[in-house]
Amino acid sequence: MPPPIPVVFEGGSAGLWRVERISPVRGESLPSTERLAVFEGVREVSERKSAWVLRGVAGHPRYVEKREKEALAAVQPPLGRAEATRAALIPIRKSAAWWELAQDERRAIFEEQSRHTGEGIKYLPAVARRLYQSRELGEPFDFLTWFEYAPRHAEAFEDLVGFLRTTPEWEFVEREVDIRLSR
Amino acid sequence: MPPPIPVVFEGGSAGLWRVERISPVRGESLPSTERLAVFEGVREVSERKSAWVLRGVAGHPRYVEKREKEALAAVQPPLGRAEATRAALIPIRKSAAWWELAQDERRAIFEEQSRHTGEGIKYLPAVARRLYQSRELGEPFDFLTWFEYAPRHAEAFEDLVGFLRTTPEWEFVEREVDIRLSR
Repeated sequence: MPPPIPVVFEGGSAGLWRVERISPVRGESLPSTERLAVFEGVREVSERKSAWVLRGVAGHPRYVEKREKEALAAVQPPLGRAEATRAALIPIRKSAAWWELAQDERRAIFEEQSRHTGEGIKYLPAVARRLYQSRELGEPFDFLTWFEYAPRHAEAFEDLVGFLRTTPEWEFVEREVDIRLSR
Repeated sequence: MPPPIPVVFEGGSAGLWRVERISPVRGESLPSTERLAVFEGVREVSERKSAWVLRGVAGHPRYVEKREKEALAAVQPPLGRAEATRAALIPIRKSAAWWELAQDERRAIFEEQSRHTGEGIKYLPAVARRLYQSRELGEPFDFLTWFEYAPRHAEAFEDLVGFLRTTPEWEFVEREVDIRLSR
């Protein structure tokens, strides 16, 4: 499927992924569920049996420059690797102050100050990642980030999310929920 | 209403704006209609009586830098001025090649090569403008740009759209429809 690729994450009693825990990092959490189902390529599902539904669209990167894009492409693994039996879904909403910044200001915070890509790339190919945009869809979050990794890389993944939460970029995060999964 | 602000443009037999002409600039056109209705703040309307419906979301600018943002803010007029009885709705889709470019490559084409903001600002405050993003919504166009101006600025507006269509940025436009309106 060519981008943009829509996705629906459905928290409920069905789905490939078992929900290990749902932790509120900042702001309001999401209701606990047993399972998470991921529907790529669709924009809507019936919500009748689900505790919550989050929608997003994977498209083009907003801050990554040409040399970074090429460096990422050289090492980033695909989703769905057999060994990647752990996953995380981390929905994030940024503040109005973030969205009022100009492109060069957001880029400077994202990379020159926070090293989002420069540090993040060190965790590839251990961690596979896909970013879905939600802001334009009228969703409660601006982004949904999906990560997949093998159990032996669980510690590296904790380092990655721990690092990101210490950055200047994260000062603009006003809601974040950390959903951990296994299959 | 705080951004992002959704909008629905409905081409049909009702609405404030009379459709003067619908011209295909590149690619497939849209069906002729008598009127255009603009619904800001909503995401869906009944399509039963309309020839076509286009949806978008006005949010943060993707390429404008701080100094440009401030320069625009100093001169850009609001929508809805009494004298602005002419309008244009110009839906555009860009090619896959555009969306595969990194942020710095798109910015360089948009501004350093095409002077999109640097030339466009010369037509303010005569022309009021609002950009709606559609790509993430699964729409047939990537952007819907809305312009309003007084009849005495009609020639200036033609200069603006004529200029933009000669730029390197426009080489990535694969579909464009030019809808002219009056009230």
